Amino acid sequence: MTSQAVPPTTVDRLPVYLRCLLQAKGMRMPVINSVQIAEMAGTNAAQVRKDLSYLGEFGTRGIGYDVDSLITQLSRCLGVTEQRRVAIVGYGRLGSALQSYPGFEERGMRVVAVLDADPSKVGTAVNDTAVESIDELEAVVSREGVEIAVLTVPAEAAQAVANRLVAVGVGAIMNFAPVRLDLPADVAVRQADVAGELQVLSFHLELQGR
Amino acid sequence: MTSQAVPPTTVDRLPVYLRCLLQAKGMRMPVINSVQIAEMAGTNAAQVRKDLSYLGEFGTRGIGYDVDSLITQLSRCLGVTEQRRVAIVGYGRLGSALQSYPGFEERGMRVVAVLDADPSKVGTAVNDTAVESIDELEAVVSREGVEIAVLTVPAEAAQAVANRLVAVGVGAIMNFAPVRLDLPADVAVRQADVAGELQVLSFHLELQGR
Repeated sequence: MTSQAVPPTTVDRLPVYLRCLLQAKGMRMPVINSVQIAEMAGTNAAQVRKDLSYLGEFGTRGIGYDVDSLITQLSRCLGVTEQRRVAIVGYGRLGSALQSYPGFEERGMRVVAVLDADPSKVGTAVNDTAVESIDELEAVVSREGVEIAVLTVPAEAAQAVANRLVAVGVGAIMNFAPVRLDLPADVAVRQADVAGELQVLSFHLELQGR
Repeated sequence: MTSQAVPPTTVDRLPVYLRCLLQAKGMRMPVINSVQIAEMAGTNAAQVRKDLSYLGEFGTRGIGYDVDSLITQLSRCLGVTEQRRVAIVGYGRLGSALQSYPGFEERGMRVVAVLDADPSKVGTAVNDTAVESIDELEAVVSREGVEIAVLTVPAEAAQAVANRLVAVGVGAIMNFAPVRLDLPADVAVRQADVAGELQVLSFHLELQGR
């Protein structure tokens, strides 16, 4: 597998394929073809075949892909064969909604820490874990081996908190604060932008003259 | 402008450019070049020039783009010259977090209705609006002229609610429920998938051998 060469638009689709494959496994399908994956993923079969070829996975002509082995391949490529250790930083409404978002565990993400700046929230129990003070961020990240941070702090606090996360070794940040983070190039960042998503929907309405 | 021809990956970046342009306008920059836009958007200048060329906007060589006119062009292309009328369907933690998400109004999105199935939430005031019963969905959508729905209902309710939204004329749905919606091809759908975003981050960690 040469993950280096996988185009970003393909990487964006791999989690979708993995989800479809897990669904197929749940339906006890031993094999699946590109048409079936495409149908589940909402794309086309040629795209599926091309995307999966980057993983060195071509399936068997006339038969398709072995579901179990494709799950293994995708999980390896996405680095989720073991659970990734995730911290939610900022336990407001969004943070708490995400903390209980269904499907994290099945998809290789384990929330191991929840942090907030508000002393009245610190100590509150959240499922198995308790909210800890953001003052303890460095200690918590080290103790729990946090690999990915979900940032749901206010915009004005985001950059400073992100700097602290990176300084203590967190290599990936999903940022829900509506501000662009300025971070070293080797830190992976995904910027959530709900208003932007709605604008893309608006583009499609506009195309239809609506 | 031939929006039909704009590739999806370019469409995904247009909201980012528009946000950068609005920021430039706030900084009282009358003109901006592709290098500056790329810097703010976290991409490269060649990509910016190519993306904007789909809008028929080439800028002036050696000078750049007129900020005001590019804002107008992007806003037209994205269909946000007037505010789009948005309903939030499902007023749990995620729905309430989104309802107060900063930057909707500035970016052409106006939340005109909030709906929930829980009778104890109906009537609750939310900023200017009040939570209404999901039983009244059709009447509320018609009354408010809802164009885009943000779906934050439980997974098991999502398809049925989406069907009702489409039946009453809603043409675009942002789906936060962790389930793929099966809807007519002319309905624009964006699927939020936080676990998938985290898997893309995990891919980058894996690439670095982390």
